[in-house]
Amino acid sequence: MKSFNSRLSHHIAAKHSWLCVGLDINPENLSKVNPTLDDLNIHTKKVIDATREFATAYKPNLAFFERWGSKGFSWLEETMDYIGQETLTIGDGKRGDIGHTAKQYAISLFDHFGFDAVTLNPYMGRDAIDPFIQNPEKGVFILCRTTNTSGGDLQNLEGNGKRIFETVAEYCASLNGNNNVGLVAGATVPEEIKSIRKYAPGLPLLIPGIGSQGGDLEASLTAGNTNGAALINVSRGIIFAGDQSEEAIHDAAKNYVEKMRMIINK
Amino acid sequence: MKSFNSRLSHHIAAKHSWLCVGLDINPENLSKVNPTLDDLNIHTKKVIDATREFATAYKPNLAFFERWGSKGFSWLEETMDYIGQETLTIGDGKRGDIGHTAKQYAISLFDHFGFDAVTLNPYMGRDAIDPFIQNPEKGVFILCRTTNTSGGDLQNLEGNGKRIFETVAEYCASLNGNNNVGLVAGATVPEEIKSIRKYAPGLPLLIPGIGSQGGDLEASLTAGNTNGAALINVSRGIIFAGDQSEEAIHDAAKNYVEKMRMIINK
Repeated sequence: MKSFNSRLSHHIAAKHSWLCVGLDINPENLSKVNPTLDDLNIHTKKVIDATREFATAYKPNLAFFERWGSKGFSWLEETMDYIGQETLTIGDGKRGDIGHTAKQYAISLFDHFGFDAVTLNPYMGRDAIDPFIQNPEKGVFILCRTTNTSGGDLQNLEGNGKRIFETVAEYCASLNGNNNVGLVAGATVPEEIKSIRKYAPGLPLLIPGIGSQGGDLEASLTAGNTNGAALINVSRGIIFAGDQSEEAIHDAAKNYVEKMRMIINK
Repeated sequence: MKSFNSRLSHHIAAKHSWLCVGLDINPENLSKVNPTLDDLNIHTKKVIDATREFATAYKPNLAFFERWGSKGFSWLEETMDYIGQETLTIGDGKRGDIGHTAKQYAISLFDHFGFDAVTLNPYMGRDAIDPFIQNPEKGVFILCRTTNTSGGDLQNLEGNGKRIFETVAEYCASLNGNNNVGLVAGATVPEEIKSIRKYAPGLPLLIPGIGSQGGDLEASLTAGNTNGAALINVSRGIIFAGDQSEEAIHDAAKNYVEKMRMIINK
């Protein structure tokens, strides 16, 4: 039985790609005016077809599905079927709750929807994480330092001689006994990725914030791939690229992966 | 237009009840063996019928619905319809994400499902909260000090001269310009509720942990109702009470509310 973190490294090596395609299928970004749920579903499949060759992982953002209630969750179920087993999937829900509730989320995301990994929030401590790391084949990426403008409000507070996000990095490293724990660290803060690497050497990083959020690809990929693997998430920069045709989306994904290969091969 | 916090105070006064009934409808707790989703749906309606007279709010825990995917969300939609408009509803999802994603969750929880309030996680700072507090009629309860055993791992760290949960309390108080921000503070830590009250006077508190988690009702209700309102959440202690008949559930809810009235009238 392979651990999630070794599966991730294997997938990255096999595709020579560090690309995670974020499926944040926002109706406001679609070129079609007043799109229906069917339109969003069709676009999602187009994105998957266009990027399968380059994506090491897909990361459906649960908020964009939940927005539509039960019909949105049907769309997510269909999306997971369409992705299939060849590409890793990360359920981006940033869940975090007490043990008996966390267990329900784990059943939802791993057993019902079939994700390979999920994103989690560390604010409630270990109880909120434990149910997700029992099965070594399934992984977690725990929020450490996030990309949003107010991300530092709490995360950069100093406590016990280090910043909160550094405490989180160290804390999460201590939970990695099954080799299935990783961290979320924003590309808008590459200096802080270096610091995270000190406290959590070897843990895979999921790095959002490239593209529309203006993160620096080279700095993040280099810092992230020092002493561990890094997945670079791109959402809007690929899924709504150019004229939103399959070709434009394909070319955007290809372009990102080629840039990544150049950076890594330097 | 009434703010959520004043609506809450009005509901508490009108019912003379501080009871929030948590709908964590766990199949493992149902007396029927191997219950179907229909069984859970029937039990949910039974709980609502049995407790309507005493509940100031219902708090569906989203994890227990999500566990069943799109069918679980249909059940949640049906539950919300069944509760109707007379009792407040709190969507317990503890969401927390960057602005454009938080906006989707707000659309999901407020517009699609129709909750009056939601629980949120503060780890990502203000961006993750803003989309939920724009409409004064809708409210938020932000995680401050949680009831689980590892709740203090991060929340009790000292930084900038106070503990993280105290920083969160103060931070959330500063976001209450629309009078629609509250906090989640566990009943297992009543001493800390007093400290929260110093940093966030006037903010309503949602207090879980009574009953199966062993929190102290008197200490929590007294500290919580000093300088602001407190809602006491009870889940398993009511929804799976006694032989799980409508009568047993009704009596459990009645018993909790009578205890609360005695404490408040002391």
